[in-house]
Amino acid sequence: MQNAPFNLAQCIEHAGKYYSHQKVITRKVEDDSIHEITYHEILRRVRQLANALKKLGVQQGDRIGTIALNTYRHLEAWYAISGQGAVCHTINPRLSAGQMDYIINHAEDRFICIDPIFWPLIEAMHPKFGKVEGYIVLTDAAHMPTTKHDVALYCYEELIKGESDQFEWPVFDENAGSSLCYTSGTTGNPKGVMYTHKSNLLHSYAAGLPDGFGIRSLDTLLVVVPLFHANSWGISYLGPMVGANLIFPGKLMDGEAIFELVDKYQATTAAGVPTVWTNLLDFAKQKGRKLDSLRDVVVGGSAAPPWMFDAFEQKHDAQLLHAWGMTETSPLGTINRAIPQLKDLPQEEQAKIRLKQGRPVFGIDLKIVDEEGNELPHNGEAVGHLLVRGNWVVHTYYGSDAPAVNKDGWFDTGDMASIDRFGYMEIVDRSKDLIKSGGEWISSVEMENTAMGHPDVLMAAAIALKHKKWGERPLLVVVPKEGKNPDKESIKTHLGTEFAKWQIPDEVVFVEEIPMTATGKFSKLTLRKQFEGFYEEEA
Amino acid sequence: MQNAPFNLAQCIEHAGKYYSHQKVITRKVEDDSIHEITYHEILRRVRQLANALKKLGVQQGDRIGTIALNTYRHLEAWYAISGQGAVCHTINPRLSAGQMDYIINHAEDRFICIDPIFWPLIEAMHPKFGKVEGYIVLTDAAHMPTTKHDVALYCYEELIKGESDQFEWPVFDENAGSSLCYTSGTTGNPKGVMYTHKSNLLHSYAAGLPDGFGIRSLDTLLVVVPLFHANSWGISYLGPMVGANLIFPGKLMDGEAIFELVDKYQATTAAGVPTVWTNLLDFAKQKGRKLDSLRDVVVGGSAAPPWMFDAFEQKHDAQLLHAWGMTETSPLGTINRAIPQLKDLPQEEQAKIRLKQGRPVFGIDLKIVDEEGNELPHNGEAVGHLLVRGNWVVHTYYGSDAPAVNKDGWFDTGDMASIDRFGYMEIVDRSKDLIKSGGEWISSVEMENTAMGHPDVLMAAAIALKHKKWGERPLLVVVPKEGKNPDKESIKTHLGTEFAKWQIPDEVVFVEEIPMTATGKFSKLTLRKQFEGFYEEEA
Ligand SMILES: Nc1ncnc2c1ncn2[C@@H]1O[C@H](COP(=O)(O)O)[C@@H](O)[C@H]1O
Repeated sequence: MQNAPFNLAQCIEHAGKYYSHQKVITRKVEDDSIHEITYHEILRRVRQLANALKKLGVQQGDRIGTIALNTYRHLEAWYAISGQGAVCHTINPRLSAGQMDYIINHAEDRFICIDPIFWPLIEAMHPKFGKVEGYIVLTDAAHMPTTKHDVALYCYEELIKGESDQFEWPVFDENAGSSLCYTSGTTGNPKGVMYTHKSNLLHSYAAGLPDGFGIRSLDTLLVVVPLFHANSWGISYLGPMVGANLIFPGKLMDGEAIFELVDKYQATTAAGVPTVWTNLLDFAKQKGRKLDSLRDVVVGGSAAPPWMFDAFEQKHDAQLLHAWGMTETSPLGTINRAIPQLKDLPQEEQAKIRLKQGRPVFGIDLKIVDEEGNELPHNGEAVGHLLVRGNWVVHTYYGSDAPAVNKDGWFDTGDMASIDRFGYMEIVDRSKDLIKSGGEWISSVEMENTAMGHPDVLMAAAIALKHKKWGERPLLVVVPKEGKNPDKESIKTHLGTEFAKWQIPDEVVFVEEIPMTATGKFSKLTLRKQFEGFYEEEA
Repeated sequence: MQNAPFNLAQCIEHAGKYYSHQKVITRKVEDDSIHEITYHEILRRVRQLANALKKLGVQQGDRIGTIALNTYRHLEAWYAISGQGAVCHTINPRLSAGQMDYIINHAEDRFICIDPIFWPLIEAMHPKFGKVEGYIVLTDAAHMPTTKHDVALYCYEELIKGESDQFEWPVFDENAGSSLCYTSGTTGNPKGVMYTHKSNLLHSYAAGLPDGFGIRSLDTLLVVVPLFHANSWGISYLGPMVGANLIFPGKLMDGEAIFELVDKYQATTAAGVPTVWTNLLDFAKQKGRKLDSLRDVVVGGSAAPPWMFDAFEQKHDAQLLHAWGMTETSPLGTINRAIPQLKDLPQEEQAKIRLKQGRPVFGIDLKIVDEEGNELPHNGEAVGHLLVRGNWVVHTYYGSDAPAVNKDGWFDTGDMASIDRFGYMEIVDRSKDLIKSGGEWISSVEMENTAMGHPDVLMAAAIALKHKKWGERPLLVVVPKEGKNPDKESIKTHLGTEFAKWQIPDEVVFVEEIPMTATGKFSKLTLRKQFEGFYEEEA
């Protein structure tokens, strides 16, 4: 058999050639107007950008960062960077300044492609980014910012303008890194996951199967999941591969803006975290409007609440499909699609199964194990550490010496799950000490350490509590030092030195004592029980 | 990323674990009764067979033949053989004795898995099969044949009976050969195409996409395409991978038998050559029955006639999907699925496009070139040699030194095609001098040489003529030697020494002269025009 190494550029080449009339629709970040472009045109521009990057001196293996929302230019940058053998390092613009610093320096990004709206934020941080030689602002001449720093600022449209729309994609090992994404879903510093051309190919194929995303050229997919988050659930590759139209919402994530896009372009499928769907459903309800084109809404990143499944099904004739994955798994691990055996079950049982995170796509294997690593039965009752294995699952974090997998090659997800007799996995808890708010991670341990640096704080525990809008929000539980009486605001202000605004706990509560486990750690379980419903009632 | 080498056994392991209740339904070759078995049970038996084969001394890289129809045992053999690193060599039972000889010796098969119904045929040939150490008869003790030869004859069910249902699949290079299929769709001796674990994985993923076969666990797929033909269109891997139920029709291919299976098991999809669908549609029409469960019928191997598209759509609410491929392409190259742009075209144009062989699946690239190798435009008019490239396309035939691809890595299919502006490819002729009858090849050149060995024949040309039932049938055009007056029957009898019965031309016509091309070859084009409609009118 032929065995040419795979290059991700083939996805966009295929789209440009065989789905030339299909479109990418973007709400532009500059002015929120809507922009349409065909894959044919995107392919031309990707090749132009590839030529431009080469002229800037980009070499195979170089890391090129992106700090950008979902737009066609961001997508073009993905392909131009990876296709020529460099690494597309997507950076979450919502990271705290400390994390941003850390990962840009750790990745040693040479250039950064950036949305103009993020320039003020990044400009202030620039002096700390040692290796960054220049920024490519994803905009046209009219919207170019300026800078007081002595650093090159390129205008995307000006950069590609004169370039040839022909480019010979180089041939290199398909196991070479194509893209890099740091996760803060771990304790300690953010960790980089390096995807490869091959891992992305396999992941896209699997994600594209009828029981995965199941999209084709007749579909129009609303991509709310950010391009900078967990490899954009693979959609940036899958969309062009199967020729689906893509809708990129830019910066407006409110219910009205999202509704408009779905409605105007008759989106058939959508993918995003629960928070966005809450907004969308609320808007539709208020206005008495129906999302009549939607067939499948894929939700993941956090658990979707039960009412959301009903709302989509009953009000909008759409099915909400629960999926589970992580940055470390490219990210698709499981998706909840019905198998024929379910229809023999009582309605209530079917409804319960629908809420689970789903079954593994082909190429992924799962198991749950107890503390000693013994495999637990698939009976829907036993709960264990969820381990995962597959060719789009991390082996070693970027720049690390030690593998992230155990000796048998399994990666411990930090999630606690059960698996039922039909193979449906359900996440029931988390063994990693983290909080996930609106699809983004907050480290409890870091928050506790920072809080305990406050002069009046003796002990502090950060816990995740359920929240209607954000899935989870942090609560900080504080034991003041003897005789001290700190106020909430001073603690929040103190946290603000290390944390982004959205990461600061909504509430700080004072207690006399924090419950401890037998091994002398904070008993988060006890605390979470104690404060159960704290935010939910508020929402 | 993790990067464990892929082993095809993972398909059946996945099915056994995550689609344990899904089924393979077989019409048994022994007595035409219907047999059902779950993937869970199949997986157990595959592992048992793997253990048994190991005990027989099967080593990695060994070729193990199969001469068998579509049954669950044949499927089990595929996985047990390839999974342990041996090569599953599927042999077409309809080959002529000479071809059978050639390929079994060329492949150096050590064992052959054989249906009991083929034993009499093969027993007679056995003395010529130098390296075959034994036959595994795919049956139970009650249906075991005996032999007069001094060769081991194992009963499949007895062989696996005592074996463990645990098996540790070995780890080896995913580019190792998994399966071997000879094609007689070439001039000269049959040529072997060696598929690899990786090529089959990629092919299955691509074939499984919604715009490919698009099947999932809610589907039941009738597999009329033989397991011994062109890698069974990849269905043997795809089916278990996505957990679809499979229906294997055994030896009964008549309309009534096929109808019964579709109807009883509510098949949603089906795959096979046009001849079978002709029979099925005829039967349904005669009996006034509807195939009400069918959604998609994939047809390929030969061009499907226009009336067949209408018949499925209008009488059975099913769509006939034209696909093209060859043994050398694993086989999926193109499939005809609608893209959104078609709906803006006039009805007649849409209807014409539906008849074409379709658009390439992701992973395959096509081009058409003129005699000098210059690429021709995709305008639906220009006709050129169809070249194909992709990681499930042959590079070098088995045992050959010379690559089968040109210096840029393209494989010449021997088909002449046009490609339209939407990417739909249409096969319009064949540059290879062959006849395809009921999905099987007949070599014109060989037939001519044999015929010219008849004492009274001066010149003979074999041409393919359209035929309602078989797609094409051979016609032999003969110029007798001066003063001789051979009769048709004596020529047919003479051909019978080299050709299988079904390959013998239905008619022999005598002429005074055979038209020649400028370069002194028979002008088949002129001949085909001259005899156009010869068989069609008969049918
Ligand atoms: N849908 C189709 N229409 C016309 N010819 C076909 C089609 N599918 C396959 N073929 C022919 O069959 C050949 C492959 O034969 P095989 O390797 O025996 O499967 C191709 O090269 C074509 O000549």
